[in-house]
Amino acid sequence: MGTEMVKLLQERHFPLASLKLLASERSAGKLLDFAGESLPVEVLRPEALKGQDIVLGATEADVARQYAGVIVEAGGVFVDNSSAFRQDPAVPLVVPEVNLADLTAHCGIVASPNCSTILLVVAVWPLHRRRPLKRLVVSTYQAASGAGAAGMAELERQTRQVLAGEVPTAEVFPHPIAFNLFPHNSAIGADRYCEEERKMVHETRRIFHSAALPIAVTCVRVPVLRAHSEAVNLEFEEPFPVAEALALLREAPGLQVVEDWERNHFPMPVEASGQDAVLVGRVREDLSCPGALDLWLSGDQIRKGAALNAVQIAEQLAGGRR
Amino acid sequence: MGTEMVKLLQERHFPLASLKLLASERSAGKLLDFAGESLPVEVLRPEALKGQDIVLGATEADVARQYAGVIVEAGGVFVDNSSAFRQDPAVPLVVPEVNLADLTAHCGIVASPNCSTILLVVAVWPLHRRRPLKRLVVSTYQAASGAGAAGMAELERQTRQVLAGEVPTAEVFPHPIAFNLFPHNSAIGADRYCEEERKMVHETRRIFHSAALPIAVTCVRVPVLRAHSEAVNLEFEEPFPVAEALALLREAPGLQVVEDWERNHFPMPVEASGQDAVLVGRVREDLSCPGALDLWLSGDQIRKGAALNAVQIAEQLAGGRR
Repeated sequence: MGTEMVKLLQERHFPLASLKLLASERSAGKLLDFAGESLPVEVLRPEALKGQDIVLGATEADVARQYAGVIVEAGGVFVDNSSAFRQDPAVPLVVPEVNLADLTAHCGIVASPNCSTILLVVAVWPLHRRRPLKRLVVSTYQAASGAGAAGMAELERQTRQVLAGEVPTAEVFPHPIAFNLFPHNSAIGADRYCEEERKMVHETRRIFHSAALPIAVTCVRVPVLRAHSEAVNLEFEEPFPVAEALALLREAPGLQVVEDWERNHFPMPVEASGQDAVLVGRVREDLSCPGALDLWLSGDQIRKGAALNAVQIAEQLAGGRR
Repeated sequence: MGTEMVKLLQERHFPLASLKLLASERSAGKLLDFAGESLPVEVLRPEALKGQDIVLGATEADVARQYAGVIVEAGGVFVDNSSAFRQDPAVPLVVPEVNLADLTAHCGIVASPNCSTILLVVAVWPLHRRRPLKRLVVSTYQAASGAGAAGMAELERQTRQVLAGEVPTAEVFPHPIAFNLFPHNSAIGADRYCEEERKMVHETRRIFHSAALPIAVTCVRVPVLRAHSEAVNLEFEEPFPVAEALALLREAPGLQVVEDWERNHFPMPVEASGQDAVLVGRVREDLSCPGALDLWLSGDQIRKGAALNAVQIAEQLAGGRR
């Protein structure tokens, strides 16, 4: 995710005076290309964070918690991709296309949501804003990239093993992922929702300022390399004509409508990979429930689902939309 | 599917006086092992169907329509796996675990449902029978085997291509299936449901004798070789305690409960493949809706999803449960 953020800063011509790359001891010393220069990766230490205007975090929650104080005390703003502060009422949880106004209330820390949440809210917000949602039922189809580069490597390695007639060996995931799928492997709570599902429920509610919005969600890992997909059933308080919903999605920022009913062509992970926009389509009336719609989306979990959203937040902090 | 039925007749010691194997010209002349004998495949012709007590069909709908009359006129019973007669009010649509009583009303033709429908009704019936469903929301994760042996071969071939850095070539599916997924590639109707989705709605209603049961369904093809999975959200008229639901599922025929919350181990396609039972688990309260439950299932699309269900129907016709 760090590498992807560096790429985005360059692609989007982020207004930088200087760029410092920090990582654990393991990555320190590596060189990354940036705008024709070769930048060294330095070791993440409290001193290295001083004097920075904006710090983009791509670490686990415990590392984010450990360093947030240092960044804020030194006068910087911390844009955190981890789950450390997402439910902290003092920290805005921001998806620029949805709740940019929340950003102004930050006290030095801004949280970027979970990847599956970001893809969902970008697609659903234009509809919810027009006519309030009554309930959401979501099933996810989440790529191996959700477990980082190691997850993607495991999918490739296991796939080669299966094709060679060998038994796939699992290191990153608890179960084989090659030619297989399973409910999301995050910690399961007393309510029997896994952590990924709880994140989608609670983060969506915070971002929408709808504290009690009913959301049922089932998160599933699938043998796809890089983009997540979601089947979304949306119940509204009042009927929502399909044509009106489509028109709203077509003009909404961060979305690309992909719908060709003749050719049966809708959003797919291979087409969403590497794209900034969340692909959305297959919008249809749910015949089982008056006032309900179904839609289908695919979005790059590493870009809009993580790195791009954080960079967009940083762009706003650096002075206005780019 | 034909090969799988022959295997099942042998495994389950079907009470056979004789067995005749019929296929198109392309397969005629091949030999299949059966109970120590080598049986030749003959060409499917009207004359070949005369004098048979039971004919198990594993053909497309048009072939089933073409030959059904000959079978019935000759006094045989036709157990059809195609979609030809599934919505014919004169033809019972049967899943033995659910609506065996419907079988007695047959007039020479019995239909076996669509694979995704069979897996769904076997898992949901024990609950619906106890407390009536108000609405179902289903998302499927369907294996390449749904498009037959050619679909499985395409997934394998494309996967090798992608791993070799080549562009995958699509022949069976309209889009790449390797490391990708897409909404089900069956014909889309005016209501924007695809044929697979319409089958699940209408067949489930017929089997349950619940002509207006509201069912929302999204069917998706995933890069899995052989078993289908489904995320099922069930709304009931009254609250359904999880413990009671689980107890019903544990004692229901055709199901195996797979639930290990500690180890995050639930039904998976690789474990469902080759199994007769539909694997079901991850039964939890849906926190978004009072009286709703979520469950997750995986089932072998070729066995219980097709060949096994047809053979079970034939066993009943041949004189009682085996």
